[in-house]
Amino acid sequence: MAHRLEFYFDFSSPYGYLAGTRVDAVASRHGIAAEWRPFLLGAVFKLTNTVPLSSQLMKGDYMLRDVPRAARRYGVPFVLPKQFPFGTVTACRAFYHVAQTDKAGAVRLGKALFHAAFGEGRDICPIEAVVAVAADAGFDPEAVFAGIQAPEVKSLLKQEVDEAISRQVFGSPFLFADGEPFWGNDRLDEADLWLERGGW
Amino acid sequence: MAHRLEFYFDFSSPYGYLAGTRVDAVASRHGIAAEWRPFLLGAVFKLTNTVPLSSQLMKGDYMLRDVPRAARRYGVPFVLPKQFPFGTVTACRAFYHVAQTDKAGAVRLGKALFHAAFGEGRDICPIEAVVAVAADAGFDPEAVFAGIQAPEVKSLLKQEVDEAISRQVFGSPFLFADGEPFWGNDRLDEADLWLERGGW
Repeated sequence: MAHRLEFYFDFSSPYGYLAGTRVDAVASRHGIAAEWRPFLLGAVFKLTNTVPLSSQLMKGDYMLRDVPRAARRYGVPFVLPKQFPFGTVTACRAFYHVAQTDKAGAVRLGKALFHAAFGEGRDICPIEAVVAVAADAGFDPEAVFAGIQAPEVKSLLKQEVDEAISRQVFGSPFLFADGEPFWGNDRLDEADLWLERGGW
Repeated sequence: MAHRLEFYFDFSSPYGYLAGTRVDAVASRHGIAAEWRPFLLGAVFKLTNTVPLSSQLMKGDYMLRDVPRAARRYGVPFVLPKQFPFGTVTACRAFYHVAQTDKAGAVRLGKALFHAAFGEGRDICPIEAVVAVAADAGFDPEAVFAGIQAPEVKSLLKQEVDEAISRQVFGSPFLFADGEPFWGNDRLDEADLWLERGGW
């Protein structure tokens, strides 16, 4: 049976960004593609009564030290966008619009959006910004613009969020390695090991 | 200059227990002893308005799956005590009583307390339980019993808690590798790498 590596994340999550720079390499070691599943962490935080890390006393400061440190270790760029955290509904919808017909393309768009936000510090909240990133990544800007507003795409995202909640995905990134949950960028190696050993 | 690896933890923290089974081996790779510094996480949680993981929706369930899974991977026993989380003032005071004159002995006692709590699921909250663990570990029970109640030991613990707060130690375990902060059992490897490389 083929392995699975599901990668839940919020586009506004720096730890999601960090995991996004590595998750495909982990998946490919197991002969599979990582399944990118952006969702809206804010919807889960409402349920669990959680506030973003950045607003938490002490933890917020730690994150601002920890994320650039990890980025240096991985050798990937990191810039914290001025507006942070930021709304990601539009980015998510663009992703699912593309994913309807082109899963690999959606991953490519997801990476481009993450890179724009945390590699370059750009504001990817407005629809114009998301469409511009998509256009740069080779997608038809008019189709993406329309797709973001299509009822079936809105409904796809809603389903994804509901499924994330029902699977107790309470953070970002959140991985399922053959169904086994692993929370956090720092658990990607453990998910890798889980796939390698078939659990323990 | 000699390296330093400071290991902050709360005796009621399962992730602290897990780190406690490995931190000395990491330190010894760098020719040093880990500095065990138990403190009262509850005091920090009051300041940061945080509730224990176990009481958090979704995260609590995840922890109950994650900790035994990590214990299996490390090959160490894990039993969740019936009373959890539990008060650790007495355990901390016993530790600092011993540490006044015998730092290595205090680490030995710390390990014995952690093992009693999470290796065997025993309740280490009452003073009688702490003294019994200390006696089994070769310490004089009467001296430990008296030490737990000694004003200078109480004051030592208070200083430790204040210092932890001033250093923004908001979780358990929390490591400083040559002064650089790393939060979480899953960051022990990164702290190890930090010592190895002298930072990055």
